[in-house]
Amino acid sequence: MTGEFALIRRYFHPPTRHTLLAGGDDAALIVPRTAHELALSTDLLVGGQHFFPDMDPHRLGQKAAAANLSDMAAMGATPRWVLLGLTLPLPLQESWVAAFSQGFREALEAHDVDWVGGDTTAGPLALAVTIIGEVPEGQALRRSGAHAGEDIWVSGTLGDAALGLDWRLGRCPDLAPAARDFALERFECPTPRVALGQSLRALASAAIDISDGLLADLGHLLTASGVGAQLEMARIPASAAQPSGPTDSDWQRRVLQGGEDYELCFTAPSVRRSELEALGRGGKVALTRIGRVTAAPDERCVQDEAGLVVAVSWRGYDHFAEAS
Amino acid sequence: MTGEFALIRRYFHPPTRHTLLAGGDDAALIVPRTAHELALSTDLLVGGQHFFPDMDPHRLGQKAAAANLSDMAAMGATPRWVLLGLTLPLPLQESWVAAFSQGFREALEAHDVDWVGGDTTAGPLALAVTIIGEVPEGQALRRSGAHAGEDIWVSGTLGDAALGLDWRLGRCPDLAPAARDFALERFECPTPRVALGQSLRALASAAIDISDGLLADLGHLLTASGVGAQLEMARIPASAAQPSGPTDSDWQRRVLQGGEDYELCFTAPSVRRSELEALGRGGKVALTRIGRVTAAPDERCVQDEAGLVVAVSWRGYDHFAEAS
Repeated sequence: MTGEFALIRRYFHPPTRHTLLAGGDDAALIVPRTAHELALSTDLLVGGQHFFPDMDPHRLGQKAAAANLSDMAAMGATPRWVLLGLTLPLPLQESWVAAFSQGFREALEAHDVDWVGGDTTAGPLALAVTIIGEVPEGQALRRSGAHAGEDIWVSGTLGDAALGLDWRLGRCPDLAPAARDFALERFECPTPRVALGQSLRALASAAIDISDGLLADLGHLLTASGVGAQLEMARIPASAAQPSGPTDSDWQRRVLQGGEDYELCFTAPSVRRSELEALGRGGKVALTRIGRVTAAPDERCVQDEAGLVVAVSWRGYDHFAEAS
Repeated sequence: MTGEFALIRRYFHPPTRHTLLAGGDDAALIVPRTAHELALSTDLLVGGQHFFPDMDPHRLGQKAAAANLSDMAAMGATPRWVLLGLTLPLPLQESWVAAFSQGFREALEAHDVDWVGGDTTAGPLALAVTIIGEVPEGQALRRSGAHAGEDIWVSGTLGDAALGLDWRLGRCPDLAPAARDFALERFECPTPRVALGQSLRALASAAIDISDGLLADLGHLLTASGVGAQLEMARIPASAAQPSGPTDSDWQRRVLQGGEDYELCFTAPSVRRSELEALGRGGKVALTRIGRVTAAPDERCVQDEAGLVVAVSWRGYDHFAEAS
């Protein structure tokens, strides 16, 4: 047995719970449930591009899993199986692999997801995670289901991950220790809203997870649905960790445009308001109504408390912006 | 719409034929057939590691698809859906993306496979392909099903891709033009044995595709099955393009240890011999019986025509050998 295979076997073949054949063959084998559709998603995470290469490997494993679990949450799907493609620079650091795989495994186990296979190779540090979930037939939450007159909601607080990134980049050195720790935790160990996504199947008309920033991701949902939006700045939920308020441009950049909070943004008919408020009170994460869907397909509007339009960009981060 | 999304939409959303929702949402949605298992596989291809970064992008697209289709062939599965994770260096070359995606799409369309989604990002050139196939319940070909006394078979000819690589590396500058073109075609545009894999479900006891070399991949099958093997050197099929014969060490390195031929190696009870011979005569690819499975779990033996053991390594290429 060569070193590569020995490495894979030692760390990458945890026990599975609902998988016919995992790892060590040309493919894994699963048995999907009847009367369910499968949701499939692949996410790339490139060192130096999506995470600091010196990031704690245990947290990186957790975050890689969370980002993919969040895609399942946004579809209302139950995550079930994961494949990991891992590209590692030489010389190999076994302690790094051990910590990374432990973090990845723990985050999956918390949602009863089987790690069924993948691939490893040498090269610049990068992750390719493919996740597969199940959703009852016809009940998946898509981006394209929003209608004019519906409410726009978000879970949790926004801008926390961006604050953590700002701190890591030295942009807010005076941040209080408690706020810093909270923001770094949100940045490096986001909580995917998996249970919320499944609850929303019966309540929401459209959903997306906030990976690129509220305005960019909501913009994708609006475009897919052919509708517009009016948001109320004063309603947009930020945590107490933010060192400034809604009139500050850094606050706006973090809360409206900051990525990687992995909260859910969704639309729902106004008749669902009381049910959603109850779900927010009773669940693990608050739900906040931040605006409404409008019929004008190109409307992208954020208003301040005086009813004046706030000038902010609805564009997200673009990896290829230099070239396009 | 940002440049990244515009790029994805232009090239990466071909029409699908058996997919509920492809691309442009947090996940793709598919409806698996009843009474079938799903086979899942992820392969990484890193520029400079698995392919020359200046490789023709159309051929690279074909080869990336073929390598993954081959995993489905080895399981006896019908390939159905693919997700592509593509990491591209900046500045982006649109002509490269167009040619790559065309090659990838063509290879998938030839097997009626839907390209349902994926991810793109900036970084060092790399591909992460996840493929999903269907196989009737309980009929998947595994590596672990071989038994002592069975025959060992391979499809096609071995060592052609290694000859193409040798030529690219300047190791055989005197290769005749026809042999060179054949070897390069096999190296850069391998043919996955998808139909053969499905036919073998009823005939073979275990199977693997030859991506790391005959001896390494057969070794995985033998280990998974807990058996040994005796191979007859004179039976191992090589093409007329090989400039030397079985007693030459370069021939042995290419034919026995060379990777990326993407032929199938499989085992079958001897009562299946005539059916397999007929399948080889009537199919698109020859089938050759090259040896037999033995009961000794550690036996790894290649014999020459005089019955003498040939000294060759059964180890495959190891990306992490330096570190282990």
